Amino acid sequence: MNSPSPLEHIRIVLSRTSHPGNIGAAARAMKTMGLTKLTLVDPKLFPHPEAEARASGAADVLAKAFVCATLQEALRGTVLVAGLSARRRDLAAPFRWAHDGAAELLAEVRQGAHAAAEVALVFGNETSGLSNEELALCHFPIMIPANPEYSSLNLGAAVQLMCYELRLAAGSQGTAPSGAAVLATADEVEGFHAHLERVAISSGFLDPSQPKRLLPRLRRLFGRARLEHEEVSILRGLLTTLEKPKLRRSATLAPNPRKVDP
Amino acid sequence: MNSPSPLEHIRIVLSRTSHPGNIGAAARAMKTMGLTKLTLVDPKLFPHPEAEARASGAADVLAKAFVCATLQEALRGTVLVAGLSARRRDLAAPFRWAHDGAAELLAEVRQGAHAAAEVALVFGNETSGLSNEELALCHFPIMIPANPEYSSLNLGAAVQLMCYELRLAAGSQGTAPSGAAVLATADEVEGFHAHLERVAISSGFLDPSQPKRLLPRLRRLFGRARLEHEEVSILRGLLTTLEKPKLRRSATLAPNPRKVDP
Repeated sequence: MNSPSPLEHIRIVLSRTSHPGNIGAAARAMKTMGLTKLTLVDPKLFPHPEAEARASGAADVLAKAFVCATLQEALRGTVLVAGLSARRRDLAAPFRWAHDGAAELLAEVRQGAHAAAEVALVFGNETSGLSNEELALCHFPIMIPANPEYSSLNLGAAVQLMCYELRLAAGSQGTAPSGAAVLATADEVEGFHAHLERVAISSGFLDPSQPKRLLPRLRRLFGRARLEHEEVSILRGLLTTLEKPKLRRSATLAPNPRKVDP
Repeated sequence: MNSPSPLEHIRIVLSRTSHPGNIGAAARAMKTMGLTKLTLVDPKLFPHPEAEARASGAADVLAKAFVCATLQEALRGTVLVAGLSARRRDLAAPFRWAHDGAAELLAEVRQGAHAAAEVALVFGNETSGLSNEELALCHFPIMIPANPEYSSLNLGAAVQLMCYELRLAAGSQGTAPSGAAVLATADEVEGFHAHLERVAISSGFLDPSQPKRLLPRLRRLFGRARLEHEEVSILRGLLTTLEKPKLRRSATLAPNPRKVDP
């Protein structure tokens, strides 16, 4: 593949959509996940101001949407077609769950013999879904795991969810996000614990002849939090400050260790 | 846990939502994935006819939504809180991707010491997202993988996607869907291939002294399709029918094998 992203080889096809707002929502959902190719089969109302309003920042996806009269026309040139279905059907190919179906479409794009090969994902009408005739044009149906008592996803929401799975399947999640925090090293953490113990004893909070479980408990707490480098600096700065006027502090502020240490 | 579903221990909290339609869409998204606990912090317009219209069949979720004035109030009683964020922030805890964050919330529900423990997932205002003050009340931020050039998911779509990940994390995907097809057994498939070979030869389509690669190719084709029991019956019925008037058919219909067999 010479293409910068396999997601550009995926057509999202909306068949016989009733509400223009859903077309706009689908365009927005596609763009947030990096998809751009929208095909509309016989939409009831398009173009329409409500589609533009709901598309928000994805007006470009709407503007270059391909509109055609039949699903056959929409699928021309595609090598693999999946169709969304909310219910099982007797004569269809075995269902794929959303996650697996997305992976299968992406695998086809990646391994396809033709560099220009495109795959399609078809969504039916809001009320009736894909007809059996439409589903027969698909290689397999995809089902979104849902509450069996109420499985009626909004069309835009279903497009959002499938495009999300396609993005994940394309490996476009990106690098693991992080708060850019630098974790403290083991020796920094030990230095902090030694400092804490010193302050606990010098303040009179901890009786070194009867330490009980105070220090292990504090160690457990800070271990769980996985201290960052900067947090160790802050805590040690605090301890240093507390150490200085220790005679006055130990008299007025130190709590009774027996009330804290179980 | 005595609860029938861990999903009932998850609060979806929408903070300072501007558009009532999005509240309705969120309720619908929740119900399709089996979540029911909606909390609204200081919504601009609620209740509102547009919320009800977009909720569609999830009017019950809207009706029992808890409305309160502050996020603190919304989070009362929860033991773990995650907040959606579209951007990285310096002072926040490390981000989790949607999938991992959902798994972490579910793990807390499952392993929580208190049977009544609840966790919360917080979504900010449509335009500005969660404020830094709101995010500070969360244990960690969750980020939905998105197109870095346009990452603005609709609020309802974001709720749909997170509830989907929560449902998957809860293991509520259900049993693998299937078209209820019964696959053919190996002997049934072999019986079909033998029949096909017999017809290919008797029709004159295949010259048994020069078989070339015709039969292996047909075997490859049907192997890929993974024949079903009923399909073998249909194909063998067809072959049986074709065998009967073989003298006339072989003269008029059999194509030249050299054109087909490479």
